Amino acid sequence: MTLDQLENQIRSKGTFLCVGLDTDLEKIPGHLLQQPDPIFAFNKAIIDATAPYCVAYKPNTAFFEAYGVKGWEALERTVVYLNQNYPDHLIIADAKRGDIGNTSTRYAKAFFEEIPCDALTIAPYMGRDSVEPFLEFEGKYAVLLALTSNPGAFDFQTLPIAGQQQLYLEVLEKTQQYKNADRLMYVVGATKAEFLTDIRKVVPEAFLLIPGVGAQGGSLEEVCRYGMNKRVGLLINSSRGIIYASQGADFAQRAGQEAATLQAQMNKMLN
Amino acid sequence: MTLDQLENQIRSKGTFLCVGLDTDLEKIPGHLLQQPDPIFAFNKAIIDATAPYCVAYKPNTAFFEAYGVKGWEALERTVVYLNQNYPDHLIIADAKRGDIGNTSTRYAKAFFEEIPCDALTIAPYMGRDSVEPFLEFEGKYAVLLALTSNPGAFDFQTLPIAGQQQLYLEVLEKTQQYKNADRLMYVVGATKAEFLTDIRKVVPEAFLLIPGVGAQGGSLEEVCRYGMNKRVGLLINSSRGIIYASQGADFAQRAGQEAATLQAQMNKMLN
Repeated sequence: MTLDQLENQIRSKGTFLCVGLDTDLEKIPGHLLQQPDPIFAFNKAIIDATAPYCVAYKPNTAFFEAYGVKGWEALERTVVYLNQNYPDHLIIADAKRGDIGNTSTRYAKAFFEEIPCDALTIAPYMGRDSVEPFLEFEGKYAVLLALTSNPGAFDFQTLPIAGQQQLYLEVLEKTQQYKNADRLMYVVGATKAEFLTDIRKVVPEAFLLIPGVGAQGGSLEEVCRYGMNKRVGLLINSSRGIIYASQGADFAQRAGQEAATLQAQMNKMLN
Repeated sequence: MTLDQLENQIRSKGTFLCVGLDTDLEKIPGHLLQQPDPIFAFNKAIIDATAPYCVAYKPNTAFFEAYGVKGWEALERTVVYLNQNYPDHLIIADAKRGDIGNTSTRYAKAFFEEIPCDALTIAPYMGRDSVEPFLEFEGKYAVLLALTSNPGAFDFQTLPIAGQQQLYLEVLEKTQQYKNADRLMYVVGATKAEFLTDIRKVVPEAFLLIPGVGAQGGSLEEVCRYGMNKRVGLLINSSRGIIYASQGADFAQRAGQEAATLQAQMNKMLN
Protein backbone atom coordinates (compact mmCIF):
# COMPACT_ATOMS: atom_id res chain seq x y z
CA MET A 1 0.00 0.00 0.00
CA THR A 2 1.29 3.49 -0.82
CA LEU A 3 0.90 6.41 1.57
CA ASP A 4 -1.32 8.14 -1.00
CA GLN A 5 -3.62 5.12 -0.97
CA LEU A 6 -3.67 5.21 2.83
CA GLU A 7 -4.57 8.91 2.83
CA ASN A 8 -7.30 8.28 0.24
CA GLN A 9 -8.77 5.56 2.45
CA ILE A 10 -8.73 7.90 5.43
CA ARG A 11 -10.45 10.75 3.57
CA SER A 12 -13.03 8.63 1.78
CA LYS A 13 -14.07 6.75 4.94
CA GLY A 14 -13.68 9.71 7.30
CA THR A 15 -11.57 7.77 9.78
CA PHE A 16 -7.98 7.22 10.80
CA LEU A 17 -8.83 4.54 13.35
CA CYS A 18 -6.63 1.48 13.83
CA VAL A 19 -8.24 -1.41 15.71
CA GLY A 20 -5.80 -3.29 17.93
CA LEU A 21 -6.24 -7.06 18.12
CA ASP A 22 -5.01 -7.92 21.66
CA THR A 23 -7.03 -11.11 21.78
CA ASP A 24 -7.06 -12.76 25.21
CA LEU A 25 -8.87 -16.09 25.68
CA GLU A 26 -9.76 -15.04 29.23
CA LYS A 27 -11.64 -12.00 27.98
CA ILE A 28 -13.50 -13.24 24.90
CA PRO A 29 -17.11 -14.48 25.11
CA GLY A 30 -17.29 -18.02 26.48
CA HIS A 31 -19.26 -19.47 23.58
CA LEU A 32 -16.30 -18.86 21.24
CA LEU A 33 -14.08 -21.19 23.23
CA GLN A 34 -15.84 -24.16 21.62
CA GLN A 35 -14.66 -23.08 18.16
CA PRO A 36 -11.67 -24.93 16.69
CA ASP A 37 -9.69 -21.64 16.66
CA PRO A 38 -11.33 -19.29 19.17
CA ILE A 39 -8.74 -16.51 18.68
CA PHE A 40 -9.41 -16.38 14.97
CA ALA A 41 -13.18 -16.70 15.46
CA PHE A 42 -13.09 -13.67 17.75
CA ASN A 43 -10.84 -11.66 15.44
CA LYS A 44 -12.98 -12.44 12.38
CA ALA A 45 -16.14 -11.25 14.12
CA ILE A 46 -14.44 -8.08 15.38
CA ILE A 47 -12.98 -7.36 11.93
CA ASP A 48 -16.28 -7.85 10.11
CA ALA A 49 -18.03 -5.54 12.59
CA THR A 50 -15.45 -2.74 12.62
CA ALA A 51 -14.06 -2.69 9.06
CA PRO A 52 -16.28 0.17 7.81
CA TYR A 53 -15.05 2.45 10.60
CA CYS A 54 -11.29 1.91 10.50
CA VAL A 55 -8.41 1.93 8.01
CA ALA A 56 -5.99 -0.35 9.85
CA TYR A 57 -5.75 -3.41 12.10
CA LYS A 58 -2.93 -4.01 14.54
CA PRO A 59 -2.52 -7.61 15.72
CA ASN A 60 -0.37 -7.56 18.86
CA THR A 61 2.00 -10.49 18.41
CA ALA A 62 2.47 -11.04 22.17
CA PHE A 63 -1.16 -12.10 22.53
CA PHE A 64 -0.71 -14.72 19.81
CA GLU A 65 2.71 -15.94 20.97
CA ALA A 66 1.37 -16.50 24.49
CA TYR A 67 -0.53 -19.47 22.97
CA GLY A 68 2.51 -20.96 21.24
CA VAL A 69 2.14 -22.67 17.87
CA LYS A 70 -1.68 -22.39 18.01
CA GLY A 71 -1.31 -18.66 18.54
CA TRP A 72 0.87 -18.34 15.44
CA GLU A 73 -1.67 -20.31 13.45
CA ALA A 74 -4.35 -17.86 14.62
CA LEU A 75 -2.11 -14.92 13.68
CA GLU A 76 -1.55 -16.33 10.21
CA ARG A 77 -5.28 -16.99 9.74
CA THR A 78 -6.12 -13.47 10.86
CA VAL A 79 -3.66 -11.86 8.45
CA VAL A 80 -4.74 -14.10 5.56
CA TYR A 81 -8.38 -13.25 6.29
CA LEU A 82 -7.63 -9.53 6.28
CA ASN A 83 -5.65 -9.70 3.05
CA GLN A 84 -8.36 -11.69 1.29
CA ASN A 85 -11.39 -9.77 2.53
CA TYR A 86 -10.17 -6.28 3.39
CA PRO A 87 -7.18 -5.59 1.13
CA ASP A 88 -7.55 -1.81 1.57
CA HIS A 89 -6.91 -1.99 5.33
CA LEU A 90 -3.34 -1.57 6.51
CA ILE A 91 -2.14 -4.51 8.63
CA ILE A 92 0.37 -3.51 11.31
CA ALA A 93 2.08 -6.37 13.14
CA ASP A 94 2.71 -4.90 16.59
CA ALA A 95 5.82 -6.91 17.29
CA LYS A 96 8.44 -4.41 18.57
CA ARG A 97 11.23 -6.30 16.80
CA GLY A 98 14.81 -5.23 16.02
CA ASP A 99 18.22 -6.92 16.03
CA ILE A 100 21.55 -6.90 14.15
CA GLY A 101 21.24 -6.64 10.38
CA ASN A 102 20.96 -10.26 9.22
CA THR A 103 18.50 -11.01 12.03
CA SER A 104 16.32 -7.97 11.32
CA THR A 105 16.17 -9.17 7.71
CA ARG A 106 14.68 -12.43 9.03
CA TYR A 107 12.06 -10.57 11.06
CA ALA A 108 11.20 -8.53 7.97
CA LYS A 109 10.70 -11.73 5.98
CA ALA A 110 8.56 -13.15 8.79
CA PHE A 111 6.13 -10.22 8.82
CA PHE A 112 6.30 -8.84 5.28
CA GLU A 113 6.43 -12.13 3.35
CA GLU A 114 5.64 -15.25 5.38
CA ILE A 115 2.75 -13.61 7.27
CA PRO A 116 2.17 -10.74 4.86
CA CYS A 117 1.48 -7.61 6.90
CA ASP A 118 1.93 -4.07 5.57
CA ALA A 119 3.83 -2.68 8.53
CA LEU A 120 5.71 -3.79 11.63
CA THR A 121 6.52 -1.95 14.86
CA ILE A 122 10.23 -1.92 15.70
CA ALA A 123 12.48 -0.70 18.53
CA PRO A 124 15.29 1.83 17.93
CA TYR A 125 17.89 0.92 20.58
CA MET A 126 20.22 -1.04 18.28
CA GLY A 127 20.46 1.75 15.68
CA ARG A 128 20.84 1.99 11.93
CA ASP A 129 21.74 -1.55 10.87
CA SER A 130 18.88 -2.92 13.00
CA VAL A 131 16.33 -0.60 11.32
CA GLU A 132 17.33 -0.33 7.66
CA PRO A 133 16.65 -4.00 6.77
CA PHE A 134 12.96 -3.32 7.44
CA LEU A 135 12.97 -0.40 5.00
CA GLU A 136 14.01 -2.41 1.95
CA PHE A 137 10.49 -3.58 1.11
CA GLU A 138 8.48 -1.42 -1.29
CA GLY A 139 4.98 -0.66 -0.03
CA LYS A 140 5.88 -1.88 3.49
CA TYR A 141 6.48 0.29 6.54
CA ALA A 142 8.46 0.09 9.77
CA VAL A 143 6.78 1.85 12.67
CA LEU A 144 9.57 2.89 15.03
CA LEU A 145 9.08 3.46 18.75
CA ALA A 146 9.71 7.14 19.44
CA LEU A 147 7.80 8.23 22.54
CA THR A 148 5.62 5.50 24.00
CA SER A 149 2.40 5.79 26.01
CA ASN A 150 3.53 3.96 29.15
CA PRO A 151 5.00 5.36 32.39
CA GLY A 152 8.39 3.74 31.66
CA ALA A 153 8.76 6.10 28.67
CA PHE A 154 10.29 8.60 31.10
CA ASP A 155 13.11 6.20 32.09
CA PHE A 156 15.14 6.70 28.92
CA GLN A 157 13.13 8.26 26.07
CA THR A 158 12.95 11.72 27.60
CA LEU A 159 16.52 11.88 28.94
CA PRO A 160 18.34 14.95 27.66
CA ILE A 161 21.29 14.19 25.41
CA ALA A 162 24.31 16.34 26.31
CA GLY A 163 23.97 19.85 24.96
CA GLN A 164 21.11 18.82 22.75
CA GLN A 165 17.63 17.43 22.84
CA GLN A 166 15.76 14.59 24.49
CA LEU A 167 16.52 11.04 23.35
CA TYR A 168 13.19 10.49 21.56
CA LEU A 169 13.81 13.60 19.40
CA GLU A 170 17.34 12.36 18.67
CA VAL A 171 15.78 9.04 17.63
CA LEU A 172 13.41 10.83 15.26
CA GLU A 173 16.12 13.05 13.80
CA LYS A 174 18.74 10.36 13.33
CA THR A 175 16.40 7.75 11.87
CA GLN A 176 15.18 10.29 9.32
CA GLN A 177 18.72 10.07 7.86
CA TYR A 178 18.45 6.29 7.37
CA LYS A 179 18.11 4.84 3.87
CA ASN A 180 14.47 4.71 2.69
CA ALA A 181 13.35 6.78 5.67
CA ASP A 182 10.17 7.60 3.76
CA ARG A 183 9.07 4.08 4.75
CA LEU A 184 9.30 4.95 8.46
CA MET A 185 6.32 5.72 10.64
CA TYR A 186 6.63 6.41 14.38
CA VAL A 187 4.86 5.36 17.57
CA VAL A 188 3.90 8.32 19.77
CA GLY A 189 1.66 7.76 22.78
CA ALA A 190 -1.58 9.75 22.96
CA THR A 191 -0.80 10.28 26.64
CA LYS A 192 2.08 12.51 25.47
CA ALA A 193 0.04 14.81 23.16
CA GLU A 194 1.82 17.93 24.41
CA PHE A 195 5.05 16.56 22.91
CA LEU A 196 3.54 16.42 19.41
CA THR A 197 4.43 20.02 18.52
CA ASP A 198 8.14 19.27 18.97
CA ILE A 199 7.75 15.94 17.18
CA ARG A 200 6.11 17.53 14.14
CA LYS A 201 9.05 19.94 13.81
CA VAL A 202 11.34 16.93 13.26
CA VAL A 203 9.00 14.66 11.27
CA PRO A 204 6.44 16.93 9.60
CA GLU A 205 5.54 14.40 6.91
CA ALA A 206 5.60 11.03 8.67
CA PHE A 207 2.58 9.02 9.72
CA LEU A 208 2.34 8.57 13.49
CA LEU A 209 0.77 5.51 15.09
CA ILE A 210 -0.85 6.74 18.28
CA PRO A 211 -1.86 4.27 20.99
CA GLY A 212 -3.23 5.35 24.34
CA VAL A 213 -6.58 6.94 23.41
CA GLY A 214 -9.24 5.28 25.54
CA ALA A 215 -8.12 2.82 28.22
CA GLN A 216 -4.82 4.68 28.77
CA GLY A 217 -6.45 8.14 28.97
CA GLY A 218 -5.15 10.07 25.92
CA SER A 219 -7.32 12.74 24.27
CA LEU A 220 -8.32 12.45 20.59
CA GLU A 221 -8.83 16.20 20.29
CA GLU A 222 -5.38 17.07 21.61
CA VAL A 223 -3.68 14.49 19.45
CA CYS A 224 -5.37 15.96 16.36
CA ARG A 225 -4.66 19.56 17.34
CA TYR A 226 -0.92 18.99 17.73
CA GLY A 227 -0.30 15.99 15.51
CA MET A 228 -2.33 16.23 12.30
CA ASN A 229 -0.50 17.24 9.13
CA LYS A 230 -1.47 17.96 5.52
CA ARG A 231 -1.83 14.27 4.62
CA VAL A 232 -3.58 13.63 8.00
CA GLY A 233 -0.50 11.70 9.18
CA LEU A 234 -2.23 9.96 12.08
CA LEU A 235 -3.36 6.44 12.80
CA ILE A 236 -5.05 6.32 16.18
CA ASN A 237 -5.18 2.92 17.77
CA SER A 238 -7.79 1.60 20.14
CA SER A 239 -7.66 -2.00 21.34
CA ARG A 240 -9.40 -2.89 24.60
CA GLY A 241 -11.98 -0.06 24.35
CA ILE A 242 -13.32 -1.61 21.15
CA ILE A 243 -12.73 -5.34 21.25
CA TYR A 244 -13.86 -5.81 24.86
CA ALA A 245 -16.77 -3.32 24.76
CA SER A 246 -18.93 -6.32 25.64
CA GLN A 247 -18.07 -9.82 26.72
CA GLY A 248 -21.54 -11.12 25.86
CA ALA A 249 -23.09 -12.51 22.70
CA ASP A 250 -23.29 -8.93 21.36
CA PHE A 251 -19.49 -8.41 21.55
CA ALA A 252 -19.03 -7.84 17.81
CA GLN A 253 -22.01 -5.50 17.51
CA ARG A 254 -20.80 -3.45 20.49
CA ALA A 255 -17.27 -3.36 19.06
CA GLY A 256 -18.74 -2.02 15.84
CA GLN A 257 -20.65 0.66 17.78
CA GLU A 258 -17.52 1.76 19.64
CA ALA A 259 -15.58 1.93 16.38
CA ALA A 260 -18.42 3.89 14.76
CA THR A 261 -18.39 6.40 17.63
CA LEU A 262 -14.68 6.98 17.17
CA GLN A 263 -15.13 7.20 13.40
CA ALA A 264 -17.75 9.93 13.87
CA GLN A 265 -15.40 11.91 16.12
CA MET A 266 -12.55 11.50 13.65
CA ASN A 267 -14.75 12.50 10.73
CA LYS A 268 -15.40 15.84 12.47
CA MET A 269 -11.66 16.36 12.96
CA LEU A 270 -11.09 15.77 9.24
CA ASN A 271 -13.62 18.43 8.20
CA MET B 1 17.81 -22.75 37.12
CA THR B 2 19.54 -20.75 39.85
CA LEU B 3 22.65 -18.68 39.20
CA ASP B 4 24.57 -20.95 41.59
CA GLN B 5 23.59 -23.92 39.46
CA LEU B 6 24.72 -22.06 36.35
CA GLU B 7 28.09 -21.25 37.93
CA ASN B 8 28.48 -24.89 39.02
CA GLN B 9 27.84 -26.04 35.46
CA ILE B 10 30.43 -23.58 34.17
CA ARG B 11 33.10 -24.67 36.64
CA SER B 12 32.48 -28.40 36.40
CA LYS B 13 32.49 -28.41 32.58
CA GLY B 14 35.17 -25.75 32.18
CA THR B 15 33.14 -23.70 29.74
CA PHE B 16 30.90 -20.65 29.59
CA LEU B 17 30.02 -21.14 25.94
CA CYS B 18 26.53 -20.45 24.62
CA VAL B 19 25.74 -21.92 21.20
CA GLY B 20 23.49 -19.71 19.08
CA LEU B 21 20.90 -21.49 16.95
CA ASP B 22 20.48 -19.17 13.94
CA THR B 23 19.22 -21.96 11.71
CA ASP B 24 18.91 -20.97 8.06
CA LEU B 25 17.52 -23.47 5.54
CA GLU B 26 19.79 -21.98 2.88
CA LYS B 27 22.89 -22.83 4.90
CA ILE B 28 22.17 -26.26 6.35
CA PRO B 29 23.36 -29.45 4.59
CA GLY B 30 21.12 -30.36 1.66
CA HIS B 31 20.37 -33.90 2.81
CA LEU B 32 18.48 -32.51 5.85
CA LEU B 33 15.93 -30.77 3.63
CA GLN B 34 14.24 -34.14 3.04
CA GLN B 35 13.44 -34.48 6.76
CA PRO B 36 9.90 -33.63 7.88
CA ASP B 37 11.28 -30.80 10.06
CA PRO B 38 14.72 -29.88 8.68
CA ILE B 39 15.22 -26.99 11.15
CA PHE B 40 14.72 -29.28 14.13
CA ALA B 41 16.78 -32.06 12.55
CA PHE B 42 19.68 -29.64 12.15
CA ASN B 43 19.30 -28.22 15.67
CA LYS B 44 19.11 -31.68 17.24
CA ALA B 45 22.31 -32.80 15.53
CA ILE B 46 24.10 -29.58 16.51
CA ILE B 47 22.90 -29.85 20.12
CA ASP B 48 23.93 -33.49 20.48
CA ALA B 49 27.40 -32.70 19.12
CA THR B 50 28.06 -29.55 21.16
CA ALA B 51 26.33 -30.19 24.51
CA PRO B 52 29.48 -31.38 26.35
CA TYR B 53 31.27 -28.13 25.48
CA CYS B 54 28.65 -25.50 26.33
CA VAL B 55 26.33 -24.50 29.16
CA ALA B 56 23.67 -22.66 27.18
CA TYR B 57 21.79 -22.59 23.87
CA LYS B 58 20.37 -19.48 22.32
CA PRO B 59 17.69 -20.04 19.68
CA ASN B 60 17.31 -16.81 17.68
CA THR B 61 13.55 -16.39 17.25
CA ALA B 62 13.88 -14.41 14.00
CA PHE B 63 15.26 -17.45 12.19
CA PHE B 64 12.25 -19.51 13.27
CA GLU B 65 9.64 -16.80 12.63
CA ALA B 66 10.94 -16.34 9.09
CA TYR B 67 9.36 -19.75 8.36
CA GLY B 68 5.98 -18.86 9.89
CA VAL B 69 3.98 -21.52 11.73
CA LYS B 70 6.44 -24.27 10.71
CA GLY B 71 9.23 -22.20 12.22
CA TRP B 72 7.38 -21.92 15.52
CA GLU B 73 6.80 -25.66 15.51
CA ALA B 74 10.55 -26.15 15.04
CA LEU B 75 11.27 -23.69 17.87
CA GLU B 76 8.92 -25.54 20.20
CA ARG B 77 10.43 -28.92 19.26
CA THR B 78 13.93 -27.59 19.83
CA VAL B 79 13.10 -26.22 23.28
CA VAL B 80 11.23 -29.39 24.29
CA TYR B 81 14.18 -31.49 23.12
CA LEU B 82 16.61 -29.41 25.17
CA ASN B 83 14.45 -29.55 28.29
CA GLN B 84 14.03 -33.31 28.02
CA ASN B 85 17.58 -34.25 27.13
CA TYR B 86 19.79 -31.46 28.47
CA PRO B 87 17.98 -29.99 31.48
CA ASP B 88 21.21 -28.53 32.87
CA HIS B 89 21.72 -26.26 29.86
CA LEU B 90 20.30 -22.74 30.05
CA ILE B 91 17.91 -21.97 27.17
CA ILE B 92 17.95 -18.31 26.13
CA ALA B 93 15.26 -17.26 23.66
CA ASP B 94 16.95 -14.48 21.71
CA ALA B 95 13.78 -12.56 20.96
CA LYS B 96 14.53 -8.90 21.82
CA ARG B 97 10.98 -8.38 23.12
CA GLY B 98 9.52 -5.59 25.26
CA ASP B 99 6.23 -3.64 25.36
CA ILE B 100 3.83 -2.00 27.82
CA GLY B 101 3.20 -4.01 30.99
CA ASN B 102 0.27 -6.26 30.09
CA THR B 103 1.88 -7.06 26.73
CA SER B 104 5.30 -7.85 28.23
CA THR B 105 3.48 -10.25 30.56
CA ARG B 106 2.19 -12.07 27.48
CA TYR B 107 5.68 -12.33 26.01
CA ALA B 108 6.92 -13.67 29.33
CA LYS B 109 4.21 -16.35 29.28
CA ALA B 110 5.11 -17.19 25.68
CA PHE B 111 8.79 -17.85 26.43
CA PHE B 112 8.79 -18.90 30.09
CA GLU B 113 5.67 -21.10 30.09
CA GLU B 114 4.27 -21.96 26.65
CA ILE B 115 7.72 -22.58 25.13
CA PRO B 116 9.62 -23.06 28.38
CA CYS B 117 12.96 -21.31 28.06
CA ASP B 118 15.07 -20.17 31.02
CA ALA B 119 15.83 -16.68 29.75
CA LEU B 120 14.74 -14.16 27.15
CA THR B 121 16.54 -11.20 25.61
CA ILE B 122 14.63 -7.92 25.93
CA ALA B 123 15.03 -4.29 24.81
CA PRO B 124 15.19 -1.40 27.30
CA TYR B 125 13.71 1.53 25.37
CA MET B 126 10.23 1.40 26.95
CA GLY B 127 11.53 1.44 30.53
CA ARG B 128 10.49 -0.01 33.86
CA ASP B 129 6.96 -1.29 33.24
CA SER B 130 8.13 -2.99 30.03
CA VAL B 131 10.94 -4.84 31.86
CA GLU B 132 9.58 -5.77 35.29
CA PRO B 133 6.92 -8.24 34.05
CA PHE B 134 9.77 -10.46 32.82
CA LEU B 135 11.35 -10.47 36.28
CA GLU B 136 8.39 -11.99 38.09
CA PHE B 137 9.29 -15.60 37.27
CA GLU B 138 11.48 -17.42 39.75
CA GLY B 139 14.40 -19.21 38.15
CA LYS B 140 13.91 -17.28 34.90
CA TYR B 141 16.06 -14.42 33.59
CA ALA B 142 15.63 -11.38 31.36
CA VAL B 143 18.72 -10.53 29.37
CA LEU B 144 18.54 -6.80 28.68
CA LEU B 145 20.27 -5.11 25.75
CA ALA B 146 22.91 -2.79 27.15
CA LEU B 147 25.71 -2.29 24.61
CA THR B 148 25.25 -4.35 21.48
CA SER B 149 27.88 -5.73 19.12
CA ASN B 150 26.66 -4.07 15.91
CA PRO B 151 27.75 -0.77 14.31
CA GLY B 152 24.36 0.82 15.05
CA ALA B 153 25.15 0.60 18.77
CA PHE B 154 26.84 4.00 18.41
CA ASP B 155 23.64 5.67 17.16
CA PHE B 156 21.99 5.87 20.59
CA GLN B 157 23.59 3.56 23.17
CA THR B 158 26.78 5.58 23.54
CA LEU B 159 25.20 9.05 23.47
CA PRO B 160 26.16 11.07 26.53
CA ILE B 161 23.26 11.92 28.81
CA ALA B 162 23.40 15.57 29.90
CA GLY B 163 25.94 16.07 32.68
CA GLN B 164 26.19 12.36 33.24
CA GLN B 165 27.19 9.16 31.56
CA GLN B 166 26.53 7.37 28.30
CA LEU B 167 23.04 5.97 27.70
CA TYR B 168 24.06 2.29 28.02
CA LEU B 169 25.50 2.98 31.49
CA GLU B 170 22.31 4.82 32.44
CA VAL B 171 20.38 1.75 31.24
CA LEU B 172 22.50 -0.50 33.45
CA GLU B 173 22.25 1.76 36.47
CA LYS B 174 18.52 2.45 36.25
CA THR B 175 17.48 -1.12 35.53
CA GLN B 176 19.46 -2.30 38.56
CA GLN B 177 16.84 -0.37 40.60
CA TYR B 178 13.96 -2.36 39.11
CA LYS B 179 12.10 -4.93 41.18
CA ASN B 180 13.78 -8.38 41.11
CA ALA B 181 16.83 -6.92 39.36
CA ASP B 182 18.79 -9.98 40.47
CA ARG B 183 16.98 -11.76 37.61
CA LEU B 184 18.52 -9.40 35.05
CA MET B 185 21.43 -10.30 32.82
CA TYR B 186 22.80 -7.94 30.16
CA VAL B 187 23.86 -8.17 26.52
CA VAL B 188 27.28 -6.62 25.91
CA GLY B 189 28.97 -7.10 22.54
CA ALA B 190 32.42 -8.70 22.50
CA THR B 191 33.37 -6.07 19.94
CA LYS B 192 33.11 -3.52 22.77
CA ALA B 193 35.44 -5.30 25.28
CA GLU B 194 37.15 -2.02 26.25
CA PHE B 195 33.82 -0.85 27.70
CA LEU B 196 33.64 -3.78 30.11
CA THR B 197 35.66 -2.08 32.86
CA ASP B 198 33.06 0.70 33.11
CA ILE B 199 30.23 -1.83 32.85
CA ARG B 200 31.57 -3.95 35.69
CA LYS B 201 31.65 -0.87 37.95
CA VAL B 202 27.85 -0.61 37.55
CA VAL B 203 26.93 -4.31 37.43
CA PRO B 204 29.71 -6.18 39.26
CA GLU B 205 27.54 -9.23 39.98
CA ALA B 206 25.40 -9.69 36.88
CA PHE B 207 25.88 -12.31 34.21
CA LEU B 208 26.69 -10.82 30.80
CA LEU B 209 25.68 -12.49 27.56
CA ILE B 210 28.43 -11.66 25.10
CA PRO B 211 27.85 -12.10 21.37
CA GLY B 212 30.37 -11.07 18.75
CA VAL B 213 33.26 -13.46 19.40
CA GLY B 214 34.13 -15.13 16.11
CA ALA B 215 32.30 -13.93 12.99
CA GLN B 216 31.97 -10.37 14.34
CA GLY B 217 35.63 -10.12 15.43
CA GLY B 218 35.55 -9.87 19.26
CA SER B 219 38.41 -11.26 21.36
CA LEU B 220 37.76 -13.94 23.98
CA GLU B 221 40.89 -12.96 25.94
CA GLU B 222 39.90 -9.30 26.20
CA VAL B 223 36.34 -10.11 27.20
CA CYS B 224 37.61 -12.34 30.01
CA ARG B 225 40.25 -9.86 31.15
CA TYR B 226 37.76 -7.01 31.56
CA GLY B 227 34.48 -8.85 32.10
CA MET B 228 34.97 -11.89 34.30
CA ASN B 229 33.84 -11.64 37.92
CA LYS B 230 33.98 -13.87 41.00
CA ARG B 231 31.11 -16.08 39.82
CA VAL B 232 32.54 -16.03 36.25
CA GLY B 233 29.59 -13.86 35.15
CA LEU B 234 30.03 -14.47 31.43
CA LEU B 235 28.17 -16.41 28.79
CA ILE B 236 29.98 -16.11 25.49
CA ASN B 237 27.87 -16.80 22.45
CA SER B 238 29.01 -18.18 19.14
CA SER B 239 26.48 -18.95 16.40
CA ARG B 240 27.70 -19.05 12.82
CA GLY B 241 31.28 -20.00 13.72
CA ILE B 242 30.01 -23.25 15.24
CA ILE B 243 26.81 -24.26 13.49
CA TYR B 244 28.08 -23.54 9.97
CA ALA B 245 31.65 -24.82 10.48
CA SER B 246 30.84 -27.28 7.69
CA GLN B 247 27.93 -27.51 5.29
CA GLY B 248 28.73 -31.13 4.42
CA ALA B 249 27.69 -34.44 5.95
CA ASP B 250 30.20 -33.80 8.77
CA PHE B 251 28.45 -30.58 9.88
CA ALA B 252 27.62 -31.81 13.39
CA GLN B 253 31.05 -33.32 13.98
CA ARG B 254 32.72 -30.08 12.84
CA ALA B 255 30.38 -28.02 15.03
CA GLY B 256 31.40 -30.19 17.97
CA GLN B 257 35.07 -29.62 17.16
CA GLU B 258 34.62 -25.84 17.01
CA ALA B 259 32.74 -25.88 20.32
CA ALA B 260 35.45 -28.09 21.86
CA THR B 261 38.14 -25.63 20.72
CA LEU B 262 36.31 -22.76 22.40
CA GLN B 263 35.74 -24.87 25.52
CA ALA B 264 39.48 -25.56 25.76
CA GLN B 265 40.25 -21.83 25.50
CA MET B 266 37.62 -21.02 28.11
CA ASN B 267 38.87 -23.75 30.42
CA LYS B 268 42.29 -22.03 30.43
CA MET B 269 40.65 -18.71 31.33
CA LEU B 270 38.88 -20.34 34.26
CA ASN B 271 42.11 -21.72 35.75
